[in-house]
Amino acid sequence: MKEIYSTSPISGKTYSVPRDSKLDELNSFINSNKKRKIVAVQGLGFVGTAMSLVVANSDKDEYAVVGIDQSSEHSYWKIEDINNGICPISSSDPLISEYYKNAHMKGNFYATSEPKAFSYADVIIIDINLDVSKFKDKNGDIETFDVPLEGFKSAIKSIGNNCKEDVLILVETTVPPGTCKKIVYPILVESLKLRGLSIDKFKLGHSYERVMPGPNYINSIKNFYRVYSGIDDESADAVEMFLRTVISTDEYPLTRLKTTESTEMAKVLENSYRAMNISFAIEWSRFAENSGLNLYEVVDAIRLRPTHSNLMYPGIGVGGYCLTKDPLMASWASKEFFGLESGLQSSVKAVENNDKMPMFCFDFVSNILKSHDKETTSIGLLGVAYGPGIGDTRFSPVEDFYNRLSAHFDNIKCQDPFVPIWTELNLEIETCLETFLVNSFDILIVTTGHRDYLNNDFIYELIGRSSKEMIIIDTVGLLDLHKLPTHFYQNKNFYVLGVGHYEK
Amino acid sequence: MKEIYSTSPISGKTYSVPRDSKLDELNSFINSNKKRKIVAVQGLGFVGTAMSLVVANSDKDEYAVVGIDQSSEHSYWKIEDINNGICPISSSDPLISEYYKNAHMKGNFYATSEPKAFSYADVIIIDINLDVSKFKDKNGDIETFDVPLEGFKSAIKSIGNNCKEDVLILVETTVPPGTCKKIVYPILVESLKLRGLSIDKFKLGHSYERVMPGPNYINSIKNFYRVYSGIDDESADAVEMFLRTVISTDEYPLTRLKTTESTEMAKVLENSYRAMNISFAIEWSRFAENSGLNLYEVVDAIRLRPTHSNLMYPGIGVGGYCLTKDPLMASWASKEFFGLESGLQSSVKAVENNDKMPMFCFDFVSNILKSHDKETTSIGLLGVAYGPGIGDTRFSPVEDFYNRLSAHFDNIKCQDPFVPIWTELNLEIETCLETFLVNSFDILIVTTGHRDYLNNDFIYELIGRSSKEMIIIDTVGLLDLHKLPTHFYQNKNFYVLGVGHYEK
Repeated sequence: MKEIYSTSPISGKTYSVPRDSKLDELNSFINSNKKRKIVAVQGLGFVGTAMSLVVANSDKDEYAVVGIDQSSEHSYWKIEDINNGICPISSSDPLISEYYKNAHMKGNFYATSEPKAFSYADVIIIDINLDVSKFKDKNGDIETFDVPLEGFKSAIKSIGNNCKEDVLILVETTVPPGTCKKIVYPILVESLKLRGLSIDKFKLGHSYERVMPGPNYINSIKNFYRVYSGIDDESADAVEMFLRTVISTDEYPLTRLKTTESTEMAKVLENSYRAMNISFAIEWSRFAENSGLNLYEVVDAIRLRPTHSNLMYPGIGVGGYCLTKDPLMASWASKEFFGLESGLQSSVKAVENNDKMPMFCFDFVSNILKSHDKETTSIGLLGVAYGPGIGDTRFSPVEDFYNRLSAHFDNIKCQDPFVPIWTELNLEIETCLETFLVNSFDILIVTTGHRDYLNNDFIYELIGRSSKEMIIIDTVGLLDLHKLPTHFYQNKNFYVLGVGHYEK
Repeated sequence: MKEIYSTSPISGKTYSVPRDSKLDELNSFINSNKKRKIVAVQGLGFVGTAMSLVVANSDKDEYAVVGIDQSSEHSYWKIEDINNGICPISSSDPLISEYYKNAHMKGNFYATSEPKAFSYADVIIIDINLDVSKFKDKNGDIETFDVPLEGFKSAIKSIGNNCKEDVLILVETTVPPGTCKKIVYPILVESLKLRGLSIDKFKLGHSYERVMPGPNYINSIKNFYRVYSGIDDESADAVEMFLRTVISTDEYPLTRLKTTESTEMAKVLENSYRAMNISFAIEWSRFAENSGLNLYEVVDAIRLRPTHSNLMYPGIGVGGYCLTKDPLMASWASKEFFGLESGLQSSVKAVENNDKMPMFCFDFVSNILKSHDKETTSIGLLGVAYGPGIGDTRFSPVEDFYNRLSAHFDNIKCQDPFVPIWTELNLEIETCLETFLVNSFDILIVTTGHRDYLNNDFIYELIGRSSKEMIIIDTVGLLDLHKLPTHFYQNKNFYVLGVGHYEK
């Protein structure tokens, strides 16, 4: 059999994926945590890992957490990193590494690929991904989309084949409304029956996270409002009891909804709403650029109105795991599970619009380059993560933008303080801003609004050292014109998406 | 010549529209206000009248206000009402009549149809309507739309032909972005030139109101944020000086934008955003009804999240003068004035969706009636205004809903505490709830969310007195099931739009 290797983008270490799953280690972890309840977290992604850290650091220290992920090239490094004292998340939130260190020191956080871990668990939290497949035409319009449930179903089966009969199973994964009752529950019942166990004792609930993997990563779980439900009252009660022990529910009261469909819907509705608000900004960006207005100024003026405070700025696009798929998931469920023939057209359209933002951004940049009559040989991109303050590059709009740029230009370099390796493109990324800006670029494009870039205004000093001919294009409205060296506006070398050429 | 009559929906009085415009009265008003500056307000609609009241009640009592409207069947009654001590607005805001009484007593508010009034004015505020014509196909899809500017242009000409050369002209009307510079300014310059006056002395600015004609009607002008601009710095300064004397700008700081296009855009962007948020709720209502979920419960859970606090509830539809046209006006301007070929498709779609809400509501009601196997002979509608707490029926979604209903049912009665006469349909409306509910209805439909209905829970008592067979359909989520007599849920006789059959 061929050896499989898995490389950590955090530590850079490469691990050989073992054939056996180190059951001894798992057993010894369970034994050394006899005084704690066992919580299994299925899926060590951006949600599951952070949730594991929050549970392992609960106020009364009552839980030991076993994180479970696949022993694949893509995921195995997380298991090794976690067990070897390396925090598997790079984040601008210092609590992430603090929580990790604390759990590692206490010895109540262990990771494995062994499904047998479920058999020890009092609580199982499902944080695996559930993706949506989109099929687009050449204009970027969405032709069809689907929610392939096979992977999700086998993950549930793996729980059903191993769990205790009185376990509490808490689904945190964003799922099509209806999934807990129509997919998860029947699979669990069938598996438990086959094992000759009672099917009346397990509890099944749904409570979605509102993780923001930025500077308030941990607090977006621990100190934030939660909505929850259960398939019956006992399940809802059990979910509530558990959440009270890990989340600051006194300050952020829990909201119980009557059915799991309701909380499942709340999650996708919430994200669809956000996706639509972003989509709304797109065509107004074009309008502003066409009419020579500063859309940032206009949005700021409107935001003073409390009912309009969350109006969005223009930008390079929407990324991340949720907003790019949740509206589609909702529409899919409305058709497949509840027979709403039309689906949710506006919500689907919002995703389609948002997905086109990098294309508009590329056109914006192209037009600027055309208007400057000189050859472009080197381009620098500041930021590749999908949003400010995070190291998450999943579905980053910068990826589409980069691909479009690289079809026309050879010499493109990228910098991001939180992304040492851009896994999707298999690119090494410069994390040090100063080192990066020593390069001489014809065009410098700000592609992620990392606040870190603005620390102590160092970026303006660095930009001041570079070529006076350099053109700066800010696609996210990060830079302050008043702090840029004067020659940038004298030479008309500073542009902002949603504004056009930026004047004092 | 045929006599024209104009009837006040407020006082019920009918006035004969005179052929002359009572110049003597105007002159005597001006003479008796020699110590005050003259502010002319063009257009005595829901904005102009309220703005007049606010200006006439400024803190330092420095203004006398001449309201100007047409001597037409539709408008003349306002002029007579105002001059005869009758407040021309019915509102749930007690400040409206208080401000009116105060101004009438002081003698600093007069109304006329005489354009000569402009010649006395130090400040002219433009509050006339600017409509959008929509042309729809039989499915309710918008085929084309237009912004006919002729009426608006002649109104500006009428000012230019009469005004002082150093007047401050403040446009409050919602206009297509670009209008102040491309339409208003050239007309004023031409008129002043023709009159041999200086064209460098007048000031022209734009500042949009955010009037909410409900219980905080006056405060939505006097105590709220304002955005303003001028065609040059002197104009912007003059607008600022004026606004400071009539609005509480210490508590609600003014925002100056660089160009009139920017404030014009801010207004239509702001309303398009709201229209889109409402449109968003529509398809989720259908989803909720299809899946048996309570969308109100879901929205409440999401609204706890500060970034999502303005998520909209489902409802019968959007009405009023602004949200039904502003997004179209914006799209029109983006094409006509700034060459954006695509226009603003999402914003147009939002209006289209919103306009269809009464149709969905009618289908919702029809399906309920079909499911109850009995003849419907009498229907009662609670509320005809377009929103809670207001007497404004312009573009009320209840109108479309009523028309659809009346195509199938003969005996429909309406009630609204703020609308004695439904002018659009020329219907007398019962204002007293108790009198109305003495009628025995087969179906009672709540069509406007007037909070007044809930005062002291009297409505539940009244409903309790009516037939036990009555079906109640709440299209705006106003009623509380727990307060309705128990037989309504026992008999499954209570339905809510965005929920379906409503159970405890």
